[in-house]
Amino acid sequence: MSKFKIAVLGASGYTGADLIRLALAHPRMEIVALSGERKAGQPVNAVWPHFIGYPLPDLVAAEDIDFAQVDAVFGCLPHATSQQIIKTIFANPRPPRVIDLSADFRLTDPAVYEQWYGNPHAALELQAEAVYGLSEFARDALKGARLAACPGCYPTAALLALLPLLHASLIRPVNITINALSGVSGAGRSLKESNLFAEVAEAMHPYGLGHHRHMPEIEQELARAAGTPLTISFTPHLVPINRGELETITVELADGRTPADLKAALEARYRDEPFVHVLPGSTAPATRMVRGSNHCVLNVFADRIPGRAIVVSAIDNLVKGSSGQAIQNFNLMFGLPETMGLEQAPLFP
Amino acid sequence: MSKFKIAVLGASGYTGADLIRLALAHPRMEIVALSGERKAGQPVNAVWPHFIGYPLPDLVAAEDIDFAQVDAVFGCLPHATSQQIIKTIFANPRPPRVIDLSADFRLTDPAVYEQWYGNPHAALELQAEAVYGLSEFARDALKGARLAACPGCYPTAALLALLPLLHASLIRPVNITINALSGVSGAGRSLKESNLFAEVAEAMHPYGLGHHRHMPEIEQELARAAGTPLTISFTPHLVPINRGELETITVELADGRTPADLKAALEARYRDEPFVHVLPGSTAPATRMVRGSNHCVLNVFADRIPGRAIVVSAIDNLVKGSSGQAIQNFNLMFGLPETMGLEQAPLFP
Amino acid sequence: MSKFKIAVLGASGYTGADLIRLALAHPRMEIVALSGERKAGQPVNAVWPHFIGYPLPDLVAAEDIDFAQVDAVFGCLPHATSQQIIKTIFANPRPPRVIDLSADFRLTDPAVYEQWYGNPHAALELQAEAVYGLSEFARDALKGARLAACPGCYPTAALLALLPLLHASLIRPVNITINALSGVSGAGRSLKESNLFAEVAEAMHPYGLGHHRHMPEIEQELARAAGTPLTISFTPHLVPINRGELETITVELADGRTPADLKAALEARYRDEPFVHVLPGSTAPATRMVRGSNHCVLNVFADRIPGRAIVVSAIDNLVKGSSGQAIQNFNLMFGLPETMGLEQAPLFP
Amino acid sequence: MSKFKIAVLGASGYTGADLIRLALAHPRMEIVALSGERKAGQPVNAVWPHFIGYPLPDLVAAEDIDFAQVDAVFGCLPHATSQQIIKTIFANPRPPRVIDLSADFRLTDPAVYEQWYGNPHAALELQAEAVYGLSEFARDALKGARLAACPGCYPTAALLALLPLLHASLIRPVNITINALSGVSGAGRSLKESNLFAEVAEAMHPYGLGHHRHMPEIEQELARAAGTPLTISFTPHLVPINRGELETITVELADGRTPADLKAALEARYRDEPFVHVLPGSTAPATRMVRGSNHCVLNVFADRIPGRAIVVSAIDNLVKGSSGQAIQNFNLMFGLPETMGLEQAPLFP
Repeated sequence: MSKFKIAVLGASGYTGADLIRLALAHPRMEIVALSGERKAGQPVNAVWPHFIGYPLPDLVAAEDIDFAQVDAVFGCLPHATSQQIIKTIFANPRPPRVIDLSADFRLTDPAVYEQWYGNPHAALELQAEAVYGLSEFARDALKGARLAACPGCYPTAALLALLPLLHASLIRPVNITINALSGVSGAGRSLKESNLFAEVAEAMHPYGLGHHRHMPEIEQELARAAGTPLTISFTPHLVPINRGELETITVELADGRTPADLKAALEARYRDEPFVHVLPGSTAPATRMVRGSNHCVLNVFADRIPGRAIVVSAIDNLVKGSSGQAIQNFNLMFGLPETMGLEQAPLFP
Repeated sequence: MSKFKIAVLGASGYTGADLIRLALAHPRMEIVALSGERKAGQPVNAVWPHFIGYPLPDLVAAEDIDFAQVDAVFGCLPHATSQQIIKTIFANPRPPRVIDLSADFRLTDPAVYEQWYGNPHAALELQAEAVYGLSEFARDALKGARLAACPGCYPTAALLALLPLLHASLIRPVNITINALSGVSGAGRSLKESNLFAEVAEAMHPYGLGHHRHMPEIEQELARAAGTPLTISFTPHLVPINRGELETITVELADGRTPADLKAALEARYRDEPFVHVLPGSTAPATRMVRGSNHCVLNVFADRIPGRAIVVSAIDNLVKGSSGQAIQNFNLMFGLPETMGLEQAPLFP
Repeated sequence: MSKFKIAVLGASGYTGADLIRLALAHPRMEIVALSGERKAGQPVNAVWPHFIGYPLPDLVAAEDIDFAQVDAVFGCLPHATSQQIIKTIFANPRPPRVIDLSADFRLTDPAVYEQWYGNPHAALELQAEAVYGLSEFARDALKGARLAACPGCYPTAALLALLPLLHASLIRPVNITINALSGVSGAGRSLKESNLFAEVAEAMHPYGLGHHRHMPEIEQELARAAGTPLTISFTPHLVPINRGELETITVELADGRTPADLKAALEARYRDEPFVHVLPGSTAPATRMVRGSNHCVLNVFADRIPGRAIVVSAIDNLVKGSSGQAIQNFNLMFGLPETMGLEQAPLFP
Repeated sequence: MSKFKIAVLGASGYTGADLIRLALAHPRMEIVALSGERKAGQPVNAVWPHFIGYPLPDLVAAEDIDFAQVDAVFGCLPHATSQQIIKTIFANPRPPRVIDLSADFRLTDPAVYEQWYGNPHAALELQAEAVYGLSEFARDALKGARLAACPGCYPTAALLALLPLLHASLIRPVNITINALSGVSGAGRSLKESNLFAEVAEAMHPYGLGHHRHMPEIEQELARAAGTPLTISFTPHLVPINRGELETITVELADGRTPADLKAALEARYRDEPFVHVLPGSTAPATRMVRGSNHCVLNVFADRIPGRAIVVSAIDNLVKGSSGQAIQNFNLMFGLPETMGLEQAPLFP
């Protein structure tokens, strides 16, 4: 079977590494180019020695890639940088399709983008056509898309938990309170004191209180599902693990609804989904159930406060929250079986 | 200076170990007896080799301790067991004072105790005189007390954050939502699969959703402060660290109140407290700031949802959440300087 | 393509779990039976919730498996138990092939087995035909084998590093000193205080000093390669990670030999191996390079003491050190491509 | 009682932080100055929020400290920098005493210093008078000393294990092989990719193979004890814990000597030492036995290779391996009880 030629931009970050890992397992992908600005010219094994057993092209600068020879580009670059280079890619006469993992094409309102990211959007015409790639809710739109904007990790976990509930008006679109825990890989490979082992290990703390950039993204998609604007509470915490993301979300039940109704709705919605699972009984979602995999596990519990429920969602931030979902979107865009290359079971312990 | 003779019941658990650690540093304490039922007869170093440099009595059975020779007993036993043995201790003609770290004397309403702990209370007359020992709020009551009921770890972090706000009616007594993270030592040294390293490491999950035993305790004390019954939401999570507890609490502001009002109230209340600190600016409380110490750090943030605030509280669950606060209560009961033996700065990294 | 029907005995331990994980990714395997004595009757998801997305048979008692319907059995049982049940399996008229991961068929000398494991061997006739399954050195023998005895995790890492050096007489068969570090999963899922998170995390220590059961196994195979009996030094250490094994081995060079000679010999031996890799330059093997994969990374360094070298070897103890190598042996026994089902790249971070 | 005024240079590193922690607990120390070049001008709490409960001077540049007002200086600076500033300090008419924690004054031979550290020594006259401060072996020399050169962390653990054995000629001065494991705090707070949480956690690897800077230091002191030059093998490994250092050392027994002789010698030497303990029976030293404390635990085991023994040593690298031993040396230099300020028991769990 022929293979699609793919390029990974930003291959020297953790998201890039996990994309390579998954692409290597994908029977229809061939990695033909890897970019890593500061590490251009180095063999992959100098940057990622864990790929020593796998033949991969050396890292190059993004501008040295011949995008005419590429079927799909995965963008693992920082925001702002991302939109510049993707704009250039689409200036090609026969551009490849682009699956972007940055935040650059997620927000539909340019004013909101500028407010939260600090720079005006530089590729508004592309923004207009970008498909927000929460795979389970974007299948039709992705089929013909040239540009997929993959959701952030926190939004992915939150939206899988909440969209079916808002679609069915089972919860009220107010006071949605998301407490999130994340492993450290979510902060990337950047050299910051706060990412040092000795600062993070045997420790935990919240961050971005009241102003995290994933807030407007979650609100945009929840509002679309609710059919009304809404404002969420979202507090992420840093926890000393490499990968894993857990969200504990309190919601207000719509009149007459029960936590069991919510669970039934999630079960109905995800019954046939290969990657989203509602746990039986009162089993609490745990990140160890999804480590290294593209799965999401969900469950619903009664809150002690009457009229409320607690919805819990767990994913691997680097897979379903990032590179895995990007591959899933690639599969949808190229008409391949959606689970191709993503069948690996979680790694536990 | 003369020393008070103390006994530690349940010295083979983590709480007992930390109590020994702190008592060794206390200039007015002499450890004269240590009980550990399953390990009676063993030298301490067989159970806790980290005390090899310190002379300590061998472990004995609790019933072999001559409580007439003891000034104070620290009870680190499981609930139900605890009330039985403390009842026996107080049957002595000149009983020692008792600082109990179990849950047995925390709940004032016997029906609530029975509902949550599954057995009727066996020492109601002692329950009636027990002082709920959240040190900063129980100084006067502890002075003459014979029996202190030390708060649970989760309640300690929550109450230090919330009591001043409810006392001053700065927040509404509804929809208080506590998301808590705890290190594994809180689960004790018991042999459960869920406490094995390989189950816990590189993982995280919520537990006790909707029905954790610290719920009625937190509600009891918050209701007392609010002057009205109330119901809280409380969701603890297990995080792969040894010690540390973090609570992220969303609250509704009373009419006309702001997050800054809340912070000012906490600052005013704790300005002269040796162990409770409101952090400057937008610094987020982190467990690494209190590891191994009796300190609590707090801060207040505006929530993105208007009319709400987020209060964050961090303690070491084994110290301020358990053994340290027990020592602090001992100091108060015996008229010693409150910080005696607890001056050690946090251990970081 | 038709699939081989496999049974996994001892599916409720970590080795069993990793075998299931890998078997699910194997295109020619179908899991038809899983045994777990204490957990017989439970669905897999009750024991291993991370397999929720995968259809698997419920756990049963081993004696309830119809081995006549099975092509291959993977034995993940404790020693002694293992030989009993495998003996029963081979009493069938048309027995399946057995890949045993226990220690029961590794030692060729029954006296040595009895000395180190404390019980006389109960299946000597099977011992005689068992093939010691260090895959890279047992290909021919495995082809027709009915029974493969998979090496222990520590022996695997040691033998891959040392066998080519002894075969070529590049090192002296004396004073081979193996310092080993292992993650906690190597200790299994048994309920021992020493495996609790709070005992292991933020800590490390050696164990089995001078008398670990992998010693005779390593010696047996090294002696076979050296053509002379030998005695090794072996000291394992417990390190707070889930999976990973690292061995730092000091060896004495044969007359006139250099560390570069050793490295060249390893490179020559493993150049075409899919799973064993000699690292370039002075890159030190690290467990993060092999996590979750069947790879082994090696390198050689000059020791500061003249006439000696240091050989370093890293594997994932649950994969190449256990379940992955078992699958590799299955592939060899059934004439499949050796890498089938084992192509997954390591998981990092 | 009057207090000695102390200054800590390099207070923004982990060693500096632990020195502050211990100094705060020392009844005869008053911290009057803290330097931190890049962070000069900041309050301590901006750099080390865990000291929020403790009054401490703001960080300044080292050159702004009035050393005439200081009784003792603790140098926690990098090598080379350290000797420059200490030279300046001693140029004062009435200089304070200096306890240096850097490597600058440990090596008595300037040629060896230059070879391993890459720059010629700039304060040879001070080097000549510096006392190598392995406290238990330098008491007399430290009494009148102006300048103590505190040992490196790895040398401390090795020398406490080996010096008594070499002094008594119980082991041969050849083939001493030290395998060491260290927590990450030993690498300091510098921003290097290799120190990031996601690189270190759930991983381990050796480093500095054959050429670590602690080698000549260990050899210098072992040679002094043996009365003959010697060459060691030393391989450190990075392990994902914050603090702790463990050395597993294989030695050759002198003729007729047994492992029991070695243990007896260590027991005799350390019987009355407050901080060095030989463990009973076959208990293996573990870093959890010393975490946060100035203790060292030792034990001796028979190696499987006849004529050899294994000596195991565990310390907290930041305490006995660094700041704690510096305080111990301060006590000796100022005629105080040696354990003053260092009595805190280890923190476990």
